[in-house]
Amino acid sequence: MTFTNTRKVRIEWGDCDPAGIIFYPRYFEMFDAATAALFERALGITKHRMFKTLPFAGFPLARTRARFLKPTRFGDDVTVTSTITFGRASFQVEHKLTLDGVLCAEGSETRVWVAPDPATGGFKPHPIPDEVRAKFEG
Amino acid sequence: MTFTNTRKVRIEWGDCDPAGIIFYPRYFEMFDAATAALFERALGITKHRMFKTLPFAGFPLARTRARFLKPTRFGDDVTVTSTITFGRASFQVEHKLTLDGVLCAEGSETRVWVAPDPATGGFKPHPIPDEVRAKFEG
Amino acid sequence: MTFTNTRKVRIEWGDCDPAGIIFYPRYFEMFDAATAALFERALGITKHRMFKTLPFAGFPLARTRARFLKPTRFGDDVTVTSTITFGRASFQVEHKLTLDGVLCAEGSETRVWVAPDPATGGFKPHPIPDEVRAKFEG
Amino acid sequence: MTFTNTRKVRIEWGDCDPAGIIFYPRYFEMFDAATAALFERALGITKHRMFKTLPFAGFPLARTRARFLKPTRFGDDVTVTSTITFGRASFQVEHKLTLDGVLCAEGSETRVWVAPDPATGGFKPHPIPDEVRAKFEG
Repeated sequence: MTFTNTRKVRIEWGDCDPAGIIFYPRYFEMFDAATAALFERALGITKHRMFKTLPFAGFPLARTRARFLKPTRFGDDVTVTSTITFGRASFQVEHKLTLDGVLCAEGSETRVWVAPDPATGGFKPHPIPDEVRAKFEG
Repeated sequence: MTFTNTRKVRIEWGDCDPAGIIFYPRYFEMFDAATAALFERALGITKHRMFKTLPFAGFPLARTRARFLKPTRFGDDVTVTSTITFGRASFQVEHKLTLDGVLCAEGSETRVWVAPDPATGGFKPHPIPDEVRAKFEG
Repeated sequence: MTFTNTRKVRIEWGDCDPAGIIFYPRYFEMFDAATAALFERALGITKHRMFKTLPFAGFPLARTRARFLKPTRFGDDVTVTSTITFGRASFQVEHKLTLDGVLCAEGSETRVWVAPDPATGGFKPHPIPDEVRAKFEG
Repeated sequence: MTFTNTRKVRIEWGDCDPAGIIFYPRYFEMFDAATAALFERALGITKHRMFKTLPFAGFPLARTRARFLKPTRFGDDVTVTSTITFGRASFQVEHKLTLDGVLCAEGSETRVWVAPDPATGGFKPHPIPDEVRAKFEG
């Protein structure tokens, strides 16, 4: 099962470097926000609410990769299309960033769903709750 | 003469610190983007186009101040209202950031309009072009 | 009573904008880190340890102001000199950022010492602990 | 031929997210700075000087990948070890980030050496200059 979300993002002056193009770590900030937006779209609640209403302590990144095909610049309104695929306690999100229909960057994130771990006061991997899966399938 | 622009901004997970609230330098990133948006609103072109069509090499900050009244959190959709007042080669922008109508932060920026300086290859202060003022007055 | 700390900071490529100079919110990131470094210098523990060993939930910013006199660029090794002055539950830090002895930027932060508030699960202002003051005076 | 550089980096409060651990795009900022530091170590000049003295307009990223094994926190002093391998007009940098000898994150960057392109006013791939290779071999 997969689920896709699309959003517009403005590349800002402060996202760009002395070469006048986007400083690449900003793409990962956009991917992180796009993943949060995708959950918000499916679940109908913000990530902030997820902490309060679900067995949830975040979805830290395990792995990522990205390719940068064409630079973007401040003033560009890019489209980020994000598609999620679920495993048991982990999931993968593919992000495609386009400008006027042309692919400029694409990347993927492998994340782990974690829940609070009372034993340590930290957190540990936790199966993605059924109620979460159901919302994505709905 | 003053001119006001208003925009919505989402506070993202990556804008927040271990206290769970916004890391304050992110407010200045928002103010910087809000100033660019205000010019785009008045002039009808992005900051990127301003470099190509105007005697313009940026509007670096000379001074700023801000007050932080109430913390904001990831998932908050705040409203940034920005009002500009022009001097001869400088201008001031007042930003008010509210959440559900409550003032959370406010700040002001004093910026200098600069244009390329052929003598040095750098830039120097330049009177704000009449065509720019006219657009704000229109 | 005041206390001063000095540190070197490298301006990085990613701190700079398309004008080739530092993007000003980065100065506030440097000031924030400089304030943490000042406490670490005086107390002999990191901010992370302060959370574990003191009635402490952070020192959020109430107000700031700054002036930018001369731009800095990637590759510049600047010196940040930070001086703290204590009130009862708040303190002020003055930061001066110089390059080769020339003042490039200066700013001040007014911060509030906060401690956990069991009543709300949040935090509230708290007098700066005597053991903290004593370390700064020692 | 490979060349390695090692540096210490402090994880700052502002690098961390509401989970109290580093916000992962900050790792890519560290990798970017580590690559610049590696060139500075080998060439004896900053990246800023490279623009002035070499056929050089930057080394934009073509691809990256990373794995995150163990979270780091504000106050952690991590070690970043970066190893470069050269192709003809591109190069690869492997970064390993450790805390107390334990690997926390590792990533690689594939970058392209570019030089100004007078035909377009932009830049284009350029063979890595012999004088640069010689310094790395020296």
